[in-house]
Amino acid sequence: MSSIFTKIINREIPGQIVAEDDKHIAILDINPNAKGHTLCIPKKEVNKIFDLEEQEYLDLMRFSRKVAIALEKAVPCKRVGVSVIGLEVPHVHVHLIPLQDMDDIRFEKKVSLTDDEFKELINDIKKVL
Amino acid sequence: MSSIFTKIINREIPGQIVAEDDKHIAILDINPNAKGHTLCIPKKEVNKIFDLEEQEYLDLMRFSRKVAIALEKAVPCKRVGVSVIGLEVPHVHVHLIPLQDMDDIRFEKKVSLTDDEFKELINDIKKVL
Repeated sequence: MSSIFTKIINREIPGQIVAEDDKHIAILDINPNAKGHTLCIPKKEVNKIFDLEEQEYLDLMRFSRKVAIALEKAVPCKRVGVSVIGLEVPHVHVHLIPLQDMDDIRFEKKVSLTDDEFKELINDIKKVL
Repeated sequence: MSSIFTKIINREIPGQIVAEDDKHIAILDINPNAKGHTLCIPKKEVNKIFDLEEQEYLDLMRFSRKVAIALEKAVPCKRVGVSVIGLEVPHVHVHLIPLQDMDDIRFEKKVSLTDDEFKELINDIKKVL
């Protein structure tokens, strides 16, 4: 069965899409640690990041950097943090999280956004991408 | 004043060095979240990871991948997690953490290793690097 991310990539279910190229997609996390929490995902469904071929991995990290630089411009924060865990969804995803403090990257505290706030955030990020 | 990492790179203070090339160093975290917790650091002292030039950033991520693949072989774990935060030491460092569960990447729970255990771990990692 395809992952939830593959379903978003294939437009089988909706996603808060921020950026996309032929090999990657970036979507807002719908249960974010902090406002602007984004996932960068390779379209190829691989479980563990270090199982990607070196070039696939570097392409994903280059894509993630572009999104992170836009996030840092669009969302007030001290810096954008990076986290790759993958113990839940077995499809590589790079968490980019606009940080104010350590709690924002512990995956315990969550914030909730309305549909309108998600939409506005996507527009703000796309403007500086 | 140079960062604690620059002092380790310059051999002004000791570090648990796992790997090194002309532009990067990898050291064991001396206050690890989990056994094998390693920091990959560019020798150039830059505060925020996304302020590195694209090529510098990609070189760091390539170096980190090599170390992570060795860690995954040397340390029993479900996978190696990645975290870049930087709210404490203003010199880019990529945390690589052998994970059993989410608690290993929350920076709250810590494990302690003896000097002999650090030494043995470094040997085990170097053997598969």
